[in-house]
Amino acid sequence: MIYFDNAATTQFKSEAVKKGILDYLNNPGNPDRGSHANSLSASRMVLKTRIKLATFFDCDDFEKVIFTSGLTQSLNTVIKGLITKKDHVITSIYEHNSVLRPLYQTNCDLDIIEDIYTIESYIKENTKAIILNHASNVTGEIQDIAYAGEICKKHNILFIVDTGQSAGHIDISMKKNHIDILCFSGHKGLMGIQGIGGICINTDVDIKPLVVGGSGIDSFSKVHPSIYPTKLEAGTLNVPGIISLYYALDFIDEYGLDTIYKHEKDLEEYCLSKLRKIDKVHVYREKANTVGVISFNIEGMDAAIVSDKLSNKYNICTRSGAHCAPLVHNHYGTKSMVRISFGLQNTMDEIDILIKGLKEIIYED
Amino acid sequence: MIYFDNAATTQFKSEAVKKGILDYLNNPGNPDRGSHANSLSASRMVLKTRIKLATFFDCDDFEKVIFTSGLTQSLNTVIKGLITKKDHVITSIYEHNSVLRPLYQTNCDLDIIEDIYTIESYIKENTKAIILNHASNVTGEIQDIAYAGEICKKHNILFIVDTGQSAGHIDISMKKNHIDILCFSGHKGLMGIQGIGGICINTDVDIKPLVVGGSGIDSFSKVHPSIYPTKLEAGTLNVPGIISLYYALDFIDEYGLDTIYKHEKDLEEYCLSKLRKIDKVHVYREKANTVGVISFNIEGMDAAIVSDKLSNKYNICTRSGAHCAPLVHNHYGTKSMVRISFGLQNTMDEIDILIKGLKEIIYED
Repeated sequence: MIYFDNAATTQFKSEAVKKGILDYLNNPGNPDRGSHANSLSASRMVLKTRIKLATFFDCDDFEKVIFTSGLTQSLNTVIKGLITKKDHVITSIYEHNSVLRPLYQTNCDLDIIEDIYTIESYIKENTKAIILNHASNVTGEIQDIAYAGEICKKHNILFIVDTGQSAGHIDISMKKNHIDILCFSGHKGLMGIQGIGGICINTDVDIKPLVVGGSGIDSFSKVHPSIYPTKLEAGTLNVPGIISLYYALDFIDEYGLDTIYKHEKDLEEYCLSKLRKIDKVHVYREKANTVGVISFNIEGMDAAIVSDKLSNKYNICTRSGAHCAPLVHNHYGTKSMVRISFGLQNTMDEIDILIKGLKEIIYED
Repeated sequence: MIYFDNAATTQFKSEAVKKGILDYLNNPGNPDRGSHANSLSASRMVLKTRIKLATFFDCDDFEKVIFTSGLTQSLNTVIKGLITKKDHVITSIYEHNSVLRPLYQTNCDLDIIEDIYTIESYIKENTKAIILNHASNVTGEIQDIAYAGEICKKHNILFIVDTGQSAGHIDISMKKNHIDILCFSGHKGLMGIQGIGGICINTDVDIKPLVVGGSGIDSFSKVHPSIYPTKLEAGTLNVPGIISLYYALDFIDEYGLDTIYKHEKDLEEYCLSKLRKIDKVHVYREKANTVGVISFNIEGMDAAIVSDKLSNKYNICTRSGAHCAPLVHNHYGTKSMVRISFGLQNTMDEIDILIKGLKEIIYED
C-alpha cells in the first residue's frame, strides 16, 4: 500500500510514540487532579509536552500552550473566544472550513482576500485579527506569514495562524513572525495520534472559553478559572494523545525538521516534474513556495474516479474532493481535485508507481 | 501500587484495547474523508463502534451516536446547543462542574434540587430540560433516573443524563428510562482511553453545534451540515479513541456488566463495613443504592494529607479534594473529602491494606 494522504493524517508514527502510549495505558492516571503516583506521572508528561511545544513553536510561556482535541477545536476556541459581530477580520481564500465556518458563525465583518500582499489595504479601525493558514491543504502553497505578521504588528492587530499543513514540515517561530495565537494539529505533520491538537498563545488578550467544566482548581467558583492553561482546558486531558506528541516531537528533533522538509520537497519536486510531463494533467498552484502537497485533475475525468482507480487498481491512497476548502475551488473553478500529500515514509519508487498508474488510467481506459 | 481512583480514569484497559490501538497506528487513516483502504477501514471501525454504543445504551439510531473528546465536551455541546436564557432547567446538587458551569454560562433560569422525588413541583411552563447525573462522582449514590424519566415524559420535557459514573458499571437503557440525550465518557467505566466520549440522542430536538468546520460533505456550504452524526462532529475524529471504545465494549459484553457491577459492589460493601468500624471515619452518603465510589473524611485531618499519606507510605492512589462537585460539599458542609473508587482490577486484599493504612494514619501519627 502506498500512502499519499499524509495531509489528512500522517501514516508514520514512530515506535517511541506507540511504546509511550502503551506504557501509559498499562498505568494510566488523571493529570492535575490526584496527588498519587499515576496522577503525578501523567501531570509530568503533560507539563514536559507543554514545554517541548513552547520551544518547538517559539512560544514565550509554556503555560499558554493549551491542549485541545484537535485543530478544529483549537480554531473554534480561538475564533469564538475572540471575535464578535462588531469586529472586522481578514482571512484568505486558502482557508479550511475549520476557519471559515466558525468565522461565518460569529457574523463578524469579514474580508476574504486572494493576495496576502494587499492585506494592509483591508485594515479598518475595527480590524481585530488577521487569520491565515501557513500552508494550503489543497495547493500546498505557503503563505508569507512573516509579511502578514509585520503588518499585524505595525497595526496592533492580532495575528492568528493555522499551522495544519506546516507544523512538523517547516520551522515556525511565533516570535519571529509576530504570531499571537498559533493553532496546531497533533496527528498531521507532528506525527502524533488523532484526538490531540492545541493552541499556543503569545498575547494577553482575553480568549473566552468555549468549553467549561471540571478544572481541578477553584472548584467552588461558578465560573471556570481564568488562569492558563486551565482557562481553556476543561475536563480530563487526552493523556495518550499528549504522550504521543511528546515522543513525536522527540523524533522530529532527532530526525531534524530540515531533513523531513528536504525529503518531502524532493518527493514533491520529483512528482511535480513527472506530472507536468503527462498530457491532460493539470496541477493547481501559483506559488513556488510549497509544502509537500500537490493537487491536480485529469482532463475530462472526475477526481473521485481517479482516486478510486488509484486505490482499487494500484493500492495507492490519495484524496479527492473539495478538501474542506471551498474558496480555493471557487478560485480555480473546480469542485474537486485529486490530492497527493507526502510524508516521511514515502519514496521516489512510490512516485514512479503513481505516475505509471496515472498514465494507464489516462491512456488505457 | 493500589489504584483506587477509577472514578477519575479506570486503570484497567484490556489487551484488545491496547492491541486495537497499536494495529491502527501501524496503518492509520482519516475516516469519512478519503475513499482509499485506510480511510475506509477507519470509517468501518467508527461505524461499528457507533452501532455497538447504540445497542449498549439502547439508543434508537446509531447515526445519532456522536463522538466527542470526552464527557465535558459532550455536556457543553448539549447544554449550549439547547439551552438559552429564556429556558428553565432543573438539575441536582449532585452534578459535576461540567454540568453546572455550562448551565451557569447560559444564564438560564435554573433550579438545583436536593431530592429528586420533588422534581415535578419545580416544573414550569418554560421548563426545557431536566439534567441529572446517573451516579454522583463524590458519594457514588445513584439517582432514580427511571422516576425522573417518567416525569419528563409526562410533561414533555427533555431528559438529559450524565452517565460519567454509571456507564460501564450499571445497565442503562435510554428507552426504558425515557432519556432523550445521554452523555458518556470513554475512559471511565467504559474502560477506553482518555480523549474520547460521546452523546447518544433519542430526540429530534435541534442541538446547535458548538464546534463547526471540516465535514467531508457539503463542503461548499457556509454552514456546517445538519445531518447526524456530522452535525455535531467537525474535523478529524479520534479514531484511536473510538477503536479503544470498540474493544472496551467488546470486553464488557464478554465479561458481563452484571459481573463487573457485582465485583465493584462487593468491594464497596466490604470496604464500607470496614470503614464504618473505624472510629473517626465519616462516610458521606444518604442512599443505599450506589456505584463503587466511597468518599469519607477522618475527624480532624485534612483530606489532602490523608491522600498524600496513603500515596507516600502505602502506594495507594485515592483522590482528595472537591471532585469538581461543589454543591455536594455545600450539602455536607465540607470543602474536601478522600475518595476511593473501585475498578475491575481491585481486590479485597487491597482493601485490607487500605484499612490497615488508614488505621495507622489515624492512631499512630
